Order: sequence, then C-alpha cells, then structure tokens
Amino acid sequence: MREEETFELSENGNLQGNVPKKFATKYKDGSSIDWLHEEALERERDYVKKSQKSIRSLLSIWADSARVWLVVISTGIGIGVAGAWLDVLVKWLGDLREGRCQEGFFYNQVSCCSGLDPGEFCTDWQTWSEYFNVRKIFAQSLLQSSIYVTLAVVFAGGAALLVNTYAPYAFHTGIPEIKAILGGYVFDAFLTPWTLLIKALGLALAVASGLSLGKEGPLVHVACCMAYMLSRLFKQFKHSEAQKRKILAAAAAAGVSVAFGSPLGGVIFCLEELDTFALESDVMWRGFVASAIAAVSLQYIDPFGTSKLVLFQVTSGGDTWRAFELIPWLTLGIIGGVLGSLLIKLNVEIALYRRHSVLNEYPILEVATVSAITAAIAYLVVFTRVQSSELVANLFQECDPARGDYHGLCNPTAMWENVFLLLISAAIKLALTAWTFGMMVPAGIFLPTIAIGACIGRAVGMLTQSLQTTYPKAWIFLACPPDPTVRCVSPGFYSVIGASAMLGGVTRMTVSLVVILFELTGALSHVLPIMVGVMTAKWVGDALGEDGIYNVWISMRQYPFIPPVDYNDKGRIAADAMRPFGMLKKIQEGQATLQDIENLVNVHEYHGFPVVRGRELIGYATRDKLISFIELNLSPETARKRCRFSSPKHQLTPSNDNTIDILDLTSCLERSILHLRKEVPQALVVRMFQKMNLHQILFTHRGQLDGMLTKPDVVSLLTAHFPHAGALSSKGESQ
Amino acid sequence: MREEETFELSENGNLQGNVPKKFATKYKDGSSIDWLHEEALERERDYVKKSQKSIRSLLSIWADSARVWLVVISTGIGIGVAGAWLDVLVKWLGDLREGRCQEGFFYNQVSCCSGLDPGEFCTDWQTWSEYFNVRKIFAQSLLQSSIYVTLAVVFAGGAALLVNTYAPYAFHTGIPEIKAILGGYVFDAFLTPWTLLIKALGLALAVASGLSLGKEGPLVHVACCMAYMLSRLFKQFKHSEAQKRKILAAAAAAGVSVAFGSPLGGVIFCLEELDTFALESDVMWRGFVASAIAAVSLQYIDPFGTSKLVLFQVTSGGDTWRAFELIPWLTLGIIGGVLGSLLIKLNVEIALYRRHSVLNEYPILEVATVSAITAAIAYLVVFTRVQSSELVANLFQECDPARGDYHGLCNPTAMWENVFLLLISAAIKLALTAWTFGMMVPAGIFLPTIAIGACIGRAVGMLTQSLQTTYPKAWIFLACPPDPTVRCVSPGFYSVIGASAMLGGVTRMTVSLVVILFELTGALSHVLPIMVGVMTAKWVGDALGEDGIYNVWISMRQYPFIPPVDYNDKGRIAADAMRPFGMLKKIQEGQATLQDIENLVNVHEYHGFPVVRGRELIGYATRDKLISFIELNLSPETARKRCRFSSPKHQLTPSNDNTIDILDLTSCLERSILHLRKEVPQALVVRMFQKMNLHQILFTHRGQLDGMLTKPDVVSLLTAHFPHAGALSSKGESQ
Repeated sequence: MREEETFELSENGNLQGNVPKKFATKYKDGSSIDWLHEEALERERDYVKKSQKSIRSLLSIWADSARVWLVVISTGIGIGVAGAWLDVLVKWLGDLREGRCQEGFFYNQVSCCSGLDPGEFCTDWQTWSEYFNVRKIFAQSLLQSSIYVTLAVVFAGGAALLVNTYAPYAFHTGIPEIKAILGGYVFDAFLTPWTLLIKALGLALAVASGLSLGKEGPLVHVACCMAYMLSRLFKQFKHSEAQKRKILAAAAAAGVSVAFGSPLGGVIFCLEELDTFALESDVMWRGFVASAIAAVSLQYIDPFGTSKLVLFQVTSGGDTWRAFELIPWLTLGIIGGVLGSLLIKLNVEIALYRRHSVLNEYPILEVATVSAITAAIAYLVVFTRVQSSELVANLFQECDPARGDYHGLCNPTAMWENVFLLLISAAIKLALTAWTFGMMVPAGIFLPTIAIGACIGRAVGMLTQSLQTTYPKAWIFLACPPDPTVRCVSPGFYSVIGASAMLGGVTRMTVSLVVILFELTGALSHVLPIMVGVMTAKWVGDALGEDGIYNVWISMRQYPFIPPVDYNDKGRIAADAMRPFGMLKKIQEGQATLQDIENLVNVHEYHGFPVVRGRELIGYATRDKLISFIELNLSPETARKRCRFSSPKHQLTPSNDNTIDILDLTSCLERSILHLRKEVPQALVVRMFQKMNLHQILFTHRGQLDGMLTKPDVVSLLTAHFPHAGALSSKGESQ
Repeated sequence: MREEETFELSENGNLQGNVPKKFATKYKDGSSIDWLHEEALERERDYVKKSQKSIRSLLSIWADSARVWLVVISTGIGIGVAGAWLDVLVKWLGDLREGRCQEGFFYNQVSCCSGLDPGEFCTDWQTWSEYFNVRKIFAQSLLQSSIYVTLAVVFAGGAALLVNTYAPYAFHTGIPEIKAILGGYVFDAFLTPWTLLIKALGLALAVASGLSLGKEGPLVHVACCMAYMLSRLFKQFKHSEAQKRKILAAAAAAGVSVAFGSPLGGVIFCLEELDTFALESDVMWRGFVASAIAAVSLQYIDPFGTSKLVLFQVTSGGDTWRAFELIPWLTLGIIGGVLGSLLIKLNVEIALYRRHSVLNEYPILEVATVSAITAAIAYLVVFTRVQSSELVANLFQECDPARGDYHGLCNPTAMWENVFLLLISAAIKLALTAWTFGMMVPAGIFLPTIAIGACIGRAVGMLTQSLQTTYPKAWIFLACPPDPTVRCVSPGFYSVIGASAMLGGVTRMTVSLVVILFELTGALSHVLPIMVGVMTAKWVGDALGEDGIYNVWISMRQYPFIPPVDYNDKGRIAADAMRPFGMLKKIQEGQATLQDIENLVNVHEYHGFPVVRGRELIGYATRDKLISFIELNLSPETARKRCRFSSPKHQLTPSNDNTIDILDLTSCLERSILHLRKEVPQALVVRMFQKMNLHQILFTHRGQLDGMLTKPDVVSLLTAHFPHAGALSSKGESQ
C-alpha cells in the first residue's frame, strides 16, 4: 500500500512555491523527519522570496499564505460535511436493522415518520415482521432478532473486508499514528485518499453494526487524510514536511471538533494529547479556525434537526451541589482510574494474544464473530440494546415526569434491579470494548468508555439518591432542601461524572477532557465536579500504570514518538546512551572515494553520516544529499576520486598537489547540526529532543567526534520501561 | 524595595528539601535564570534522593511532592477567598459613595436592604442627602455629586499613595512582569508580601473609585504574590528557580480563574498568553487543579449570593442565528481590531508622555485628577455612571418585558438616542482607559475593554435590529421568523461579540479569550460567533500593529522576555549577532590567578565567563560558583596561584612540575552548556532560546571559541523592530 512519491520540480521553481531541488529531502515511510533541516528549508524559501522585492514575489508570499488558509478552511468544511453525512448514514443503517420505510427504503425512521400530528401513529415505518407480514409473536421476535444480528454481522464483516482488502491502515482509531506523524514520523501511506474513503465508509458500517466502538478517533484520522489530500494539490506542501504537519495538526483539531461538537475541545485536545506544544504558536491559531469552521459546517447541515452542537444536553435541575456529594464523586474517580487501567491492560493482552494466535490469520472472521456476539448479548440487556450514543444521552438525563421514563430508570421501586442492570451493562461493555479496540475495523475508544462510565455513574447516583431519600434527616444530608419533592441528588449528573472519570482513566487526558465533556453536555455549572472526577481518575490511573491507551499503542507499535514525559536519567550521561564513535558508519574526509560513498548509502538506509578526518568532526552529510550528488556526478572516472567536504582553507595540511583528483561535496553537509559534549546529562538530551523535535545530536569534545544519538535511540531509551514495547511491530531505524 | 535574599543552608540539607550549597545559584533581581542549570539541579536533587533507598529518602520525595501540592492548593483557596473578599469590599466602598446604612456603616446597600418583602421600601439605606437631611433638590444633587466625586478622589488618591509609598511594583496590571518572570526573569521584589497587601488594598480602592480599570490582571499578580509567599515557607522552593516558576504558573491560572469565574480560561490563558508552553507538561495539570480549587472557593463563599460562577449570565432568547448576522459580526470584528490598535497606540503615547513630562514627578496628583475627571464625566452620561461590571451585565441582557427596562435601552422609539449615547460612552471609556492603564494604581485592562466593546456591540445590534424590524420583507432578512413578535436579532448577544472583538484587538489572544468569554457569559451555543469576532479582530489588529498590549509593555520596559514569534533572520547567521571572541570577558586556563578572577567577578556582574586556553574552549564558569570558591579559598597565599579548570588528563602539555601552585576549579564549570557552530542560522538560535529557555549559547568551531550569545542579546534582536523598545526602562545585561 505504500505510496511511491515522485517529486516534480520545475527548474526555476522557487516562485511557484517549491524549493530548489538540491535542498528538498525525500523521506521514506518509516523514517523520521529532521525538523531542524525542514525549518531551515522553510526559512530559506521565505528568505529567497522576501529578498526579491518584486510584485511577483509579493504575490507569491501572499499566495503561500492563502493556500495554507485555503487548505485549513476546506478541511474544516470537508470534515464538518463528512461528519454530518456519517451521522445520517449511521442512523439509516442502524434503523435498517429494525425495519424499513414504506415511502422509500432510503428514509430513516425519524424522517419517515416526520410531519405527523402529535398522538398520530406512524404507519409508514414498518418493522421487518410487519413488512414480511409475520403475525405470531414468537416468529416475529425470532425474525426481528435474526435480521438484527445478521445485519450486524454483515455491516461489521463488510467494514472488515473493506479495511483488510483496500486500506489496512484504516483499522483502529488512528490517534497513535497521528501523534507519531505530528512528532515527525513519516507515514504517508496512512493518509492516502483510499484510506480516507475506506475509513469513512468502514466507520459508518462499524458504528451501525452496533460493535462497541465510537467514531471519534477515526474522525480525526479522516480529517487528517482530507487535509493531506488537499495539501497534495499544492507543491508548497509536497516538499515541506514541517508545513504538512502544521496543516495536519489543524485538521486533527477540526476532527475532534466535529466528533464531539466541541470546537474548543478540539484545539485543546491537539495541545494536550497530540503534543503540538512543540510546533509553532500559529498552529494553535490555525487549529482554532479549522475547529470553528468544522463546527459551523456541522451545525449548518444539522443532521439531527436540533440546530444544536451539544450532543448530550444535560438539563440538570438545580445548579447547586452539596459538599457531601464529593464522596460519591471521589468514589467515581477511583472507579474510573481502576477500570480505565483494567481496560488498557485487557486491551494490551488481547492485542498480544491476537497477534500471536490463529486470529491473526482471519481478521474478518474475528470481526464477524465479535459482532454476532455483541449483537446477541446486546439484545438481552435493556441498556445495551440501543446505540451507545442514545444510551449515553438517556443516562445523562435527569428523571422528569414531563419527559417520560427511560426504561424504568426513574421508577424508585425498581432501583436495585436497575443498579444491577447498569453494572452488568458496564461490565459487558468493558469486555467487548477491550476486545473490539484493535480489530480490523475503524474503532474509536471514546464513546464506549463514556458509555461504561455513564452506566456506573448513574448506578452510583441512584444509590446515593436512594440513601438520601431514605435517610433525609441524617447529618450528612442536612444540606439538602427539607422539601422531599425537591430533588437533592441528580443521578443524571453523576452519570456525566462517571463518564469523565472513566475517560480520565483510559486516556489520562485532563484539561482537554473537561473541555470536551462540558461542551458535549453544556453543563457549564458542573465543570468543577467534572474536574474532581477527572483528577482523581488520573491520579489513581497513573498509580496503576503509567501511560494512557494511546501511548500504550504507540509503544506497542514502536512508532518513533518521544512522549513529553519527565525522564529520570538516574545520573547517567549522554555517553552511556550514545552510539560511540567506533560503531558509527562514517565518511573519512579526503579518504573516501565517491564509489565508497555510493556503497555506503546503498548498504545503509540511515538518515545521514558524520564526516570525519581521523576523529575530528567535519560535519554531517545526509544520505539524501549524497544520493543526489552521486546521481549527478557518478561516472567511471569520478568513482575513484576522493571526496572533500570542508573547504581547503580549513585544511590543516595543504594538499595543493592533487586538487584535480578531489571532488567537492561541501554542499552535502547539513548546516543546522547540534553538537554537545558527551558529559551532558541524559535528561538534558531527552529534553532537547522533546522540545526541538531533533533527529540527531552529535557529541564532540574539542572538535573530536565522540558519538551520536538519534531519535530512535531516544525513543527506545524512553520506552525501555514498558514491557510490551514494540510488541506489535518490528520496525526500527538506527544511526 | 528590593529584597535582599539570605540563603540559609543546613550542612546536610539535601534531605530537608534543599540543595548542596555548592550547587545553589543566587540570582539578583534583574538577571535571567539559567534554565538548563536549574533543571540540572532539580535532577541532581531527585537523583540524590532516589539513589538513597532508605525510608527517610522515600518520605522526603513524598514530602517534596506534598509541599508542591500544598502550595498549589493553598494558593487556589487563598486567591478564591481574596477574590471574594475583594468583591465585597469593592461593593461596600462603591455604595459608600452614594449613602450609608442606618443599621451600621459597614453594610452595603444590598445587605442593608435584605430581608424586605417584595414591594416594601428600604428605609435603612440612606443617601447622603437624607443622612444630612438636605431637602432642596438642587442642594441634594450638589451634595450627592460632590460626595461622589470627593470619595472617588479620596479612594483613587489613597490607592496611589499606598502604591507610591509602600510598593511601587504594585502599580499597573502585572501581567507583563509575570510573563517575564515565567520566562526566566528574576524579579523577586515584584512578589513580596508587601506588594501583595498593597496591590489587593489598592485594587479595591481603585476599582471602587470608579476609575476606568478592572481587577483581572492585578488579581493574577496577587495570586502570584500569594504563591511566592507560601513557597518561601519551604526551603525546597527557595533554591529552585524552576520549581518556583512552575508554582507561579499555576497561581496565575488560579488568578484568572477567580477574576473571570473561568477555571478553564485560567489554564488556557496560562498556555497562550503567559507562554508556559516552554515549561513542563505537569504545569498544565497543576494550573488546572489550582484553577479548579480557586473557583470552588469563590463559589463556596459566594460573595453575591447567586451561587453561580457565571458573572454576566446571558439569557439569549433563541439559540439559533442567521447567516446575514455574519455581516454585523464581521463589522464588529473589524471595529474591535481598529479600536484595539488605537487603544494600544494611545496608551503607549500617553505612557511616553507621562515618563518625559512633569507628570512623572506627581503620580498621586495625576491619579487624583484623573479620578475627579472620570467621576465628573461619569455623572453626565447615563451608561458611565454605574460601575463597569454592572454596565456590562446589563448590556449583555436581552430586552425582556418581564425583567424591566435598563435605562430605556429597550425603548424602540429612543433607539437613535441610545445608539448615540452608547457610542459616546465607548469613546469616553476608550480615552479614559488609555490614560488610566499605566498610572500609579493597580489597574487591569480587561474590564474596561469589555465595557467599550459591549457598548459598541449593543449599538450595532440595536441598529441591525431596527433595520430588520423596519424592513422585515427584505431578502436578507427572510431567514427571520415571520412572526414580528418573535425576536430575530438579539442586541444583547451583539454586545458579547463586540466585547470579544475589542478584547481580541487589545490583547491579541485567541483561544483563551473565547474560553474566558463563554465561561463568563455561559453562552455555549454562541461560541462560534464569538470566534468569528475574535478572529476578525486579531487579523485586523495584527495588520495595524504587531503586538498585543502586554507585549508592548514588555518591550517598553525591556524585560528579558523572548516572545514566541517566528523570527525572520533574513539569511543572517549567528556569527552576525554573537558577541565575538575578542569582546568577551574570559578566563585564561592555567594563566589567570585567583586574584585575577576575583577582580573579574567584582568588576563584571555577568552571569558567567567562558574559560579558554588561547582560543580553545575549556568550559563555562558561572560567576556565582566562582564567588563561592573565592569566598572559601581566597587568602594571601592562594591569591597568586594560577587556576586550572580542566583535569590534567585533558591537558595537552603535561606540566607536572608546578602542580602545587595550581588551584583546581573544575567544580566551577557548568556541565549543561550548549555549543553550536557560528554558521548556524539566527532563526535556529532564536528557536533554541525560545524552546529551551536558555541563558546563553557558545559558538565553537573545532574546539575553538568563536563567540557567545546571551538571552538579553536575543531579546534585543527580537525587539529591534519595535519603535519604543526600552522606552520606560534603562535596564540591561550583557555577556
């Protein structure tokens, strides 16, 4: 599936927005970009344009900026439209599992039955048993349930088939990969138009099949694919990995914005989870614009006819809360942390089992089986029968006689039964989610996690409420209003806190989670309790296992991503980690012939090679530049010439006699290279990689090269503590 | 006012949370900290503790972390309480300008009149004319207005007197200084308990006097003073500038949280405006906790008895908006951008005029005069008579017959008159704010800016509404509901957008502004229009002048703050900016005697000195470590000994004969020092300073020192474009 890049360059191309050929670096999938080099290129381009004070160059500068905004805005609109279309598709497919519309099979249940007067019965919508005119109750429910399960298997199997056949990278959530890409990993095959199409289609099928998965992460992936596709239209982005990543970061924000109807949450998600801190400050601004436009588009299309962004509107009765409620909230936080860690651990174990068992051979069969099991179980328990999003919306609602009861949740006499059912549902969903997240279908972890948390939260809320109504005079409940008809404890809101805590335990996000949750529910007045839940869950979760689920998957797949953690070097210095001089593939200044260098770059696919004279460091030559030079200059007569990388004035021993036999490769040296001394603490080195997004650091002392450390080395340094690091991958890049 | 630090160090102090004496660096006010050094220290401390696997060291690690949280949580509670107390004080002082309570002069009007039945007249509250029993209408209004103006002058003059006499650093907003401090500037005098007390008291007086200023920025300053004061209780923070700054960042978030009732806004303000991107990721988490706790405290004390955090609750009628409204909103954005730039330019000109005119000599008289003028003008125009916060709250409200009319704003027949009055009020407030912000009183810029924007927004909203009701059939208004009694255009919400746009123009913040504004108003459904307003204002503002008002003040006062801008080096390299070898104060390895070094550190207050042999770089010795060494070792007999910084094995020429005459100063060398080559582009160097918060970079080639670049050099490189850079300051630090 790997796309082969061909770079088309015009000769005087720098005014059309691309870079002179000698500077552009081609990266292969699986390598890491060199940010310093990319940024130097950006500056070079800017400078070339700005120094030509002609109208043409001014226009060109303006056009560069216009193209960036064009891509950002189009991506925002595109993902907003795609998100709305996806919602419509999922609703239609979901309804198709229960019946069809007489007016036309392409109507979903709501639009089929629209335009009725209140009280009128909808006759246009037929369940399958009505359609096939089955009368017997037993036969009816058999037919309904078998169509329900069959379509689930068909949808899920179809999604798996699509993904497996056309775009294997379209499986899973996509967030770990986006994190790695934004951190400098090159993985263009992950962002092709094919992946976009299959991920979007497969996602609709997977969600409609009722599998325990959400659309949130995959939407971020879809948004990034869109941005990548749009950016390919302009040469400007083709040749700049840095610019491409800035666009992708904005797209990711737009994806979250659409997934949750949370434009601010999108921006903050990018900052916190995708760690775009390291990028420039204008990334935040672009993400903000993309997010806003995506949300406007979604609201404009208005797939559910509510003209609201808020998905799970919370209508909490009293805006005040009492001190005693901190106890159940802290409990929910602890439960969220524990269950979150459990979900991560289960998920890892299942992923490893899948990889090393026969399941690895039959991904489509696995998906079909799991979807059949999911559908069968779902039919048994009342709370799992509806789609997760509907369940969550109902659990977040307070009981209100005017609005009607949801599955008897508001019946106080059935309280214990309901609590039991809610906890069973949570357990079922937890197990199913741990299995589903990682199968060969597009799958997000957010919605299932919210559903699990919402069930538990509602149960805890109902218990608290029952305690309060049973013992209204207990000192702890004295803060409640004395009037027993006034609600003191709001179980619907406990459900929101449960969801927040569970999300905190699984993703270990903090600020962005709170923002997303309160944009999702509109419960501004309850931001503080949500914070308490998320905080507690994070603390408990961190105590049980260090990483959130996305970082665990990054480690398992061994993407070269440097997490923004505080690295404790235990007093070790760079010298303890670096690849020492003796183990490096080097080029000897003035000694190596062009043929030697060609052999070197053909044998080793490293990013670059240090150039030395003896041990003295001359510079660092990238493989890419060496290859271009070789392509241009290699001939039988030059092959045996020796190569020189430093200009003669720097040579200590003058060698005027044989200048004709020497090739000048000075242009192959990288200007922006960092050297440090090898006595520097490892923590400082890690911090430099984190902050500057470096590709390599050379260690020198008094001009002598001591060793080198590259990004993959630092990644393995940081993930050494994780037991399953690299368990799902065998990729690796050294030097 | 500069506090002289005395460091108390116990001999085996590292288990009590401080660092070994030989490592701790004393910074003087006005210098910049060396982050690399500070972080190395942190790591060293951590490592020392973690390597001692005793229960005592485990307890000590736990205690370290507990102390951090103790300070963070106490600061949160403290600033929440202080904010509530300040609100009460301001309300009482403000009411005192109009009358007094018979029950006791310490009651404000609301608490004096509480407990009345609806319709009952409050007799306990007396206006001054009732108290002095003045009957004639003319005498009444003369008495009232003169007491009103007199108390304004007394309050404002009192605030200025307090500030001028006891804590000159308590003037102004404090945000520019906090930005600089978080960036590494050392300015402990800015954070003393005295400054805390005077700033809080002065702020209450200044706000109550009716001057055109807000409490927001100063509250951030107060929160930072609190955190600093609390952190001084523990040795752990005394000796770590990095830890201190992480605490301060959390405190700043808590300050914003209390000022706006916006816990999330606080966190995002810290990220965006205070640029704590460069700090570690746990800073965000701590800020989040501090913010939440501060908001809980404020809500718990509940100074206004509303039990809500939302200050300016917006009760917008319809949650939907129409496409044609984009036109007035974009207009508001443009107006906000233009007026924001105008306000900044006016403010700068006035600040420069004040500095170079006779006003500089009489700051208290200036404050008194301006407050008299403000009070006199305020009495004339209906919208400026009330406190700004009340005005804003009323402007944000929609007209609702049930709630009563506010100053005839809802009377459609008086529309043109109201629009005129609103615009006049905005103009008056703009002029007064431009003058007030920078006088010798604590003064925030947020609230006045919001008030100006709200007036303009309401005016534009009323014009749009009148247009729509006059021509309901025009094609542009066809999206409105046909029923003329249903409101289509909501002028109150236009007021919110006007305020957002004006804030965007003045501060150039984006995401944090939107978050603050929608936490302030609770208008979640209107986040997108607010984004449009802020976006437009920022674009227009950036086109008219590059920096927001805080950065302009940072430039004018020449704090060593490196803004997170994209620096265009126009092709220049580090060599063009660095202080070359010849101009550096250096120490010659093996040549300089201890006496020489003592002379050097006494004459030059630089942060440190490169150590060289000839031109070969040996290392970098900080002044501080040299001083400690000299204090310990200087005696008549050692004064003439030569100093050696590298261990003998590195020496190229063995000199065993005179080792006795040589002092070993190896311990004075800094381990974490960066060297680059001088051919590196300036933009890369600037980026390293931005990302890594460096203090200096050395430039070497093959071990030879070429030059050095320090933070102040980089700051002047970046602010060179600003015409008034350093206009209000003459500080500077070289080498």
